Amino acid sequence: MPEFNAFFETLRERIDREDTVVSVGLDADLDRIPEHLLEKDLPRWAFNRRIIDATHEYAACYKPNAAFYEDADGWRSLRETVAYAHGKDVPVLLDAKRGDIGNTARKYAELLEHVDAITANPYMGRDSLEPFLSKADKGVFVLCRTSNPGGSDLQDLELASGEPLYRRVAALADLWNERGNVGLVVGATAPAELEELRGEVPDLPFLVPGVGAQGGDTEAAVEHGLADGVGLVNSSRGIIFAGEDAGEDFAKASGQAAKRLRDRLNRYRD
Amino acid sequence: MPEFNAFFETLRERIDREDTVVSVGLDADLDRIPEHLLEKDLPRWAFNRRIIDATHEYAACYKPNAAFYEDADGWRSLRETVAYAHGKDVPVLLDAKRGDIGNTARKYAELLEHVDAITANPYMGRDSLEPFLSKADKGVFVLCRTSNPGGSDLQDLELASGEPLYRRVAALADLWNERGNVGLVVGATAPAELEELRGEVPDLPFLVPGVGAQGGDTEAAVEHGLADGVGLVNSSRGIIFAGEDAGEDFAKASGQAAKRLRDRLNRYRD
Repeated sequence: MPEFNAFFETLRERIDREDTVVSVGLDADLDRIPEHLLEKDLPRWAFNRRIIDATHEYAACYKPNAAFYEDADGWRSLRETVAYAHGKDVPVLLDAKRGDIGNTARKYAELLEHVDAITANPYMGRDSLEPFLSKADKGVFVLCRTSNPGGSDLQDLELASGEPLYRRVAALADLWNERGNVGLVVGATAPAELEELRGEVPDLPFLVPGVGAQGGDTEAAVEHGLADGVGLVNSSRGIIFAGEDAGEDFAKASGQAAKRLRDRLNRYRD
Repeated sequence: MPEFNAFFETLRERIDREDTVVSVGLDADLDRIPEHLLEKDLPRWAFNRRIIDATHEYAACYKPNAAFYEDADGWRSLRETVAYAHGKDVPVLLDAKRGDIGNTARKYAELLEHVDAITANPYMGRDSLEPFLSKADKGVFVLCRTSNPGGSDLQDLELASGEPLYRRVAALADLWNERGNVGLVVGATAPAELEELRGEVPDLPFLVPGVGAQGGDTEAAVEHGLADGVGLVNSSRGIIFAGEDAGEDFAKASGQAAKRLRDRLNRYRD
């Protein structure tokens, strides 16, 4: 049985209590937010609040992608969103994919103060992740095998030892998991890799993106994504923009989409 | 002779006209900004403005690190800083180290609208960088061999082909350089790798960090960092915090530090 830190224990409680492993990705793209919200003071926050109201009972966590909040109003929207999700008792995983040298990474680690977990890029190595790893009560999901086509460009390169780079990254992340706070990002579009990686690092929970708009393998995501029942399967656009053509009723469609995904995933859970 | 795009041609003109390859890293750390500026509306912008006033004649470019601006006031400070640097005719390279899947990377690429170039992380592969690469008039510096100790964790891994991962990344970046807009980030703390990489990709300008606080090799940075005379050698803390104990005179010390670095680097230029 893996030893989990406070974040993963909280996540486990949420998963068990609400019976869901759905991560709802909050990619609050201003170009796709319903028009009637654009006149609000903070349209992204107005959008997210309605999405959270409609989806929170199906959400194991919310995953805002930092890219959609990188401006002055964006950060204010993100802060409000995080507080609101916490008010609904849902943990927040900031999808930031950061990783930088010491003094800079420490700066990025401040992002973690407001959220419960973060995604991190391993290319710059351990010291670039240390400021995240050293936060014993937070979670760090290390990019391993990503769901995009270009994911293979570097990640699939065969090392002299015979294994692909992403397997070495998994082994390194396992080594870096001294506090029970490390997970991996492994795309559902690579089901064989999901299975292989689960065997390699049985104790690390996975965040599995790619089951929504990207069409990944839902069964493999559940079967191999969870470590002792703990893990997350994410859908972003498939949930939050499910009601894109529904005008003011958009959030209702998002709630239904989140429920459908939860039910679909639960069919494969024990 | 490498074919450069508009960004690299502008950079070349700046380098030639001002006779400098110094990149001044604007890591405007609120914990280290002089106390008398902290009462200003936007302390980071107040700090950067004074630094730019004192250093611009020695600067080939300014390199704000996004990590230090990731909050509402931060983004406003960054916007002001970029506009002010442009007013002094100095290009701005945003050190953001981004890289994410399609729809998200497109979002990040909007960051490029205000600046002239960006740093990008290659771990997620070509499609994650495409939104940056497709901006034909901007520059993209791909992380290759970084100057931090953990840089070796992944980047030095030996591939089945016998080369280390960072060399493959350099070759890929060269392949992705269809528009003459790609450079590499190669740390001065790895002088042998600098030389090796210059041989491998003669046409790509390097951004070489690590000559300041990190104590890298200045001569190697100049000798191998430039492609046909174009490239950048960065110092951040070594310049902007040179006057940390000088109170209200802090910027003067930064000007002197920038001038010293320019002169030191110019000794090795042709």
